[in-house]
Amino acid sequence: MGMIPVSRIHGALEKYKKGDIKIATVCSHSALQIFAGAHDEGFKTVGICARDRVDTYKAFGYAQPSEFVVVDSIKDILKPSMQDELVSKNVILVPHGSFVEYLGAKNIEDKLYVPMIGNRAVLDWESDRKKEREWLSEKSKVSMPRVFSSPDDIDCLCIVKFDGAKGGSGYFKVASPKEYYDEVKKRGITDGNTTIQEYLVGVRYYMHYFYSPFSDKGYPCKRGSLELTGIDRRDESNIDELHRLGMSGAEMAKAGVDASYTVTGNTGCVLRESLLPEVFEIGKRVVDASCDLFSPGMIGPFCLETVVTPELEIKVFEASARIVAGTNIYADGSPYSYLSYGKPVSCGRRIALEVKDAVAKGRLCDIVG
Amino acid sequence: MGMIPVSRIHGALEKYKKGDIKIATVCSHSALQIFAGAHDEGFKTVGICARDRVDTYKAFGYAQPSEFVVVDSIKDILKPSMQDELVSKNVILVPHGSFVEYLGAKNIEDKLYVPMIGNRAVLDWESDRKKEREWLSEKSKVSMPRVFSSPDDIDCLCIVKFDGAKGGSGYFKVASPKEYYDEVKKRGITDGNTTIQEYLVGVRYYMHYFYSPFSDKGYPCKRGSLELTGIDRRDESNIDELHRLGMSGAEMAKAGVDASYTVTGNTGCVLRESLLPEVFEIGKRVVDASCDLFSPGMIGPFCLETVVTPELEIKVFEASARIVAGTNIYADGSPYSYLSYGKPVSCGRRIALEVKDAVAKGRLCDIVG
Amino acid sequence: MGMIPVSRIHGALEKYKKGDIKIATVCSHSALQIFAGAHDEGFKTVGICARDRVDTYKAFGYAQPSEFVVVDSIKDILKPSMQDELVSKNVILVPHGSFVEYLGAKNIEDKLYVPMIGNRAVLDWESDRKKEREWLSEKSKVSMPRVFSSPDDIDCLCIVKFDGAKGGSGYFKVASPKEYYDEVKKRGITDGNTTIQEYLVGVRYYMHYFYSPFSDKGYPCKRGSLELTGIDRRDESNIDELHRLGMSGAEMAKAGVDASYTVTGNTGCVLRESLLPEVFEIGKRVVDASCDLFSPGMIGPFCLETVVTPELEIKVFEASARIVAGTNIYADGSPYSYLSYGKPVSCGRRIALEVKDAVAKGRLCDIVG
Repeated sequence: MGMIPVSRIHGALEKYKKGDIKIATVCSHSALQIFAGAHDEGFKTVGICARDRVDTYKAFGYAQPSEFVVVDSIKDILKPSMQDELVSKNVILVPHGSFVEYLGAKNIEDKLYVPMIGNRAVLDWESDRKKEREWLSEKSKVSMPRVFSSPDDIDCLCIVKFDGAKGGSGYFKVASPKEYYDEVKKRGITDGNTTIQEYLVGVRYYMHYFYSPFSDKGYPCKRGSLELTGIDRRDESNIDELHRLGMSGAEMAKAGVDASYTVTGNTGCVLRESLLPEVFEIGKRVVDASCDLFSPGMIGPFCLETVVTPELEIKVFEASARIVAGTNIYADGSPYSYLSYGKPVSCGRRIALEVKDAVAKGRLCDIVG
Repeated sequence: MGMIPVSRIHGALEKYKKGDIKIATVCSHSALQIFAGAHDEGFKTVGICARDRVDTYKAFGYAQPSEFVVVDSIKDILKPSMQDELVSKNVILVPHGSFVEYLGAKNIEDKLYVPMIGNRAVLDWESDRKKEREWLSEKSKVSMPRVFSSPDDIDCLCIVKFDGAKGGSGYFKVASPKEYYDEVKKRGITDGNTTIQEYLVGVRYYMHYFYSPFSDKGYPCKRGSLELTGIDRRDESNIDELHRLGMSGAEMAKAGVDASYTVTGNTGCVLRESLLPEVFEIGKRVVDASCDLFSPGMIGPFCLETVVTPELEIKVFEASARIVAGTNIYADGSPYSYLSYGKPVSCGRRIALEVKDAVAKGRLCDIVG
Repeated sequence: MGMIPVSRIHGALEKYKKGDIKIATVCSHSALQIFAGAHDEGFKTVGICARDRVDTYKAFGYAQPSEFVVVDSIKDILKPSMQDELVSKNVILVPHGSFVEYLGAKNIEDKLYVPMIGNRAVLDWESDRKKEREWLSEKSKVSMPRVFSSPDDIDCLCIVKFDGAKGGSGYFKVASPKEYYDEVKKRGITDGNTTIQEYLVGVRYYMHYFYSPFSDKGYPCKRGSLELTGIDRRDESNIDELHRLGMSGAEMAKAGVDASYTVTGNTGCVLRESLLPEVFEIGKRVVDASCDLFSPGMIGPFCLETVVTPELEIKVFEASARIVAGTNIYADGSPYSYLSYGKPVSCGRRIALEVKDAVAKGRLCDIVG
């Protein structure tokens, strides 16, 4: 079985009643914002929802989806009967991080034929670390943390990752070849199983972009243009409050407290305005490279996860090719989207605006794959 | 003298001119937001204000109360003459943390007969640590930090509180029975005077709920329903910037710098959306238990103060049974209230909406006690 | 050459077509917000923009200036031909931090005759540390960090600054005369070249004020009144994430990681409401002193940069006499401005409102110098 041909999806899309398109997603991650944003623009919505979450998604009057498709397992939506039902409702899916996690990238590529915002081809490029680096670093010329193929080259603070470390908790830091070999020996790790990456010391910012292939209102790309809808910072438990203990590493070890990095929430922020030209330039290069590597490129919302160094360099350590949970902090609009629209526009609403615009221009196939 | 009978308050309320109800509070804490929210919904407001704060409460055009009742001491409003004046103005009071602190819980229960949003009975249940634990932990089955009745049971990082420690500055941490006995001896504390509580390591989130006994728009409770109006994080001075010193505990001691935990302000945030079902479930259980323990339960806004652990468990360490100051960050609306209302709704405005709704439904007695 | 006489500027202003006034600034710092705020109030805008930033300032539809004046160097606007062009367009300039940095305070005072919001005389008072201290500490009686003229007086944690330290990275901390002399000797610093200042340990808050000489809606000053439009906190790279490393100072030194304090962005917050009377009182005293020292005083937006201590004292460590970049977090309105206006009002919009009001009242000369 191979990837669903785009022609099949576009075929279904052509039969959609354009005046009755519904925006749908899986009830998790950023779904409330996606529904609310769709309602802002006059769309009906469909919430694909696990049975035990229906009450939660009914608890927000305005964001509550116009109708629920209640499932026992999110994977049920891969069943042809359910997909046909969604297609018959003129549904366009909005994928988010949990959506991809629940269904699996491979299943989305090979089995999901309901029209979906964005370009399925991106799934391959972001899930494979090597391909992601080819895209971002080699083709887009974005500055990323250095990777050391040989421990002997270590010349700065590095984080060493290895298979079998759960959720990053076993990762360790070294600043020289000697430290590396000592740690590897101490931990009994087989050399060669490790990835050695420069540890970026700075402030992490998550840049929320929106790329439209046919808008010309944002920052000009090779084709279409790019908007900045917001920037967030993440809270991670327990690392972001660990310093409140006032304990040294040794004291924490004695008290049985380990550092961990579980994302629990997000806060809003703005960046120094003088960094925005660089923010756009980086985003544009990533979009342009995506158009070259997997046409029609990375459509719609995406996020670059960055560290801004004390020298005000923006280093990218990861990309997410769809709406990120950090946009939830701007469910009621962001400073940046106000600068673009003069009213509260969330990322969810920006998606709905794009669908509306695409329908009006007869270009739905340009944003749905 | 006993508690003011609710019947007396409801009697006064029945004589109120329903078209001329005024929302009033003490000018402190979250009063500006309460006034602004009342104005959003078309209510006139009364600010009970210490003489030296009038200029401040006049400095915000929109939030400025429609009229001031200037007092030398906030306790003056307990005087029957002043209470009668407030009643004659058709005033409904909105209590907040400083309101309770200025007047005293006992005085509110025994002397204040001006109609007030909420249920006075809750004052007893939250001020007494044992009753609070009965309510939250035993009846509501909410996960709270463990309390060790015997030091010999200590098996995790604990914080030890004792009488005579000012504002938490003398509290200390231990992770074993031996450490406990060493510290107690060193400090000359009489054993038995201490409370030993599990120290929760994670990120603190303050969940702002609103419970309506007659709305069905939120998360379903035994009776009525529950909304989430926002979540905040607190800034505490100096602990939240202490790490910027880059000093060890020993170096700080030498430089005469102590950790302290004075709340100075609040910042906004959102939580991972997949945690919301648990957030509502916890809130619902606390509300339902309150209805059982002190009918008609905990009416209106309340806050659960939580730590979210790296394992994404939500642990509750305290409850506040009224509007909390953290809602001030959302004086112009919150991401969550936008999801409920599609417009900016602060906690203050949500209170005003409830009063409006109660008047329309003839159910003011259900939310005022 | 001396300072441009105010009479010359006011003379130009009088010839302006009052119905066609345009708000202009240099495209950097807080320009997007200034343009968006001007558009909110119906003004046309002019963006003075370096060639390579035009795309960025076109990437925000609503904030995009009505017209661009593209320059190779920002200093070009000092040329009489360009100034005459701006005057012929009925332009009022809004100065911000980068604006002052690009042009130079001296050039603004001596060469720039395009009407500009605010009072040029303030430039002298804030750029000179001694005059700033006279203004804020002696005349305004604002609490500032102590300065020790003799190292022998050191009796608390101090930060020692000296010439030749780049961006604060070489500054060091001491808590006693002995520590001071040891460090100075170790570093080979010539004694007498250092400034010894009390190190304030608390939470830093940046208070955004707006002073209007003719409004009476805010907090009363000797003349006119004062509003609070917002409060922000700053992110600094790398100090604000350095603790995530979990390393001691010695370990960081070994790994080649230094603390640094480069501002990268801003986050929003609110302060305990009970501190607001003090916030206004401090602001008022600073305004009133400015009227005495350099009439007509500090017009329009300004910022006091403070530390709030655990004892809830507000200590001021610096003043900025114009719009600060921290207001960008409120490009779509702030909690405090909602309390004043009941709608989203950014600092940029507040400036535009003031211009509008001044035009209506025929008092433009009161706010432009």
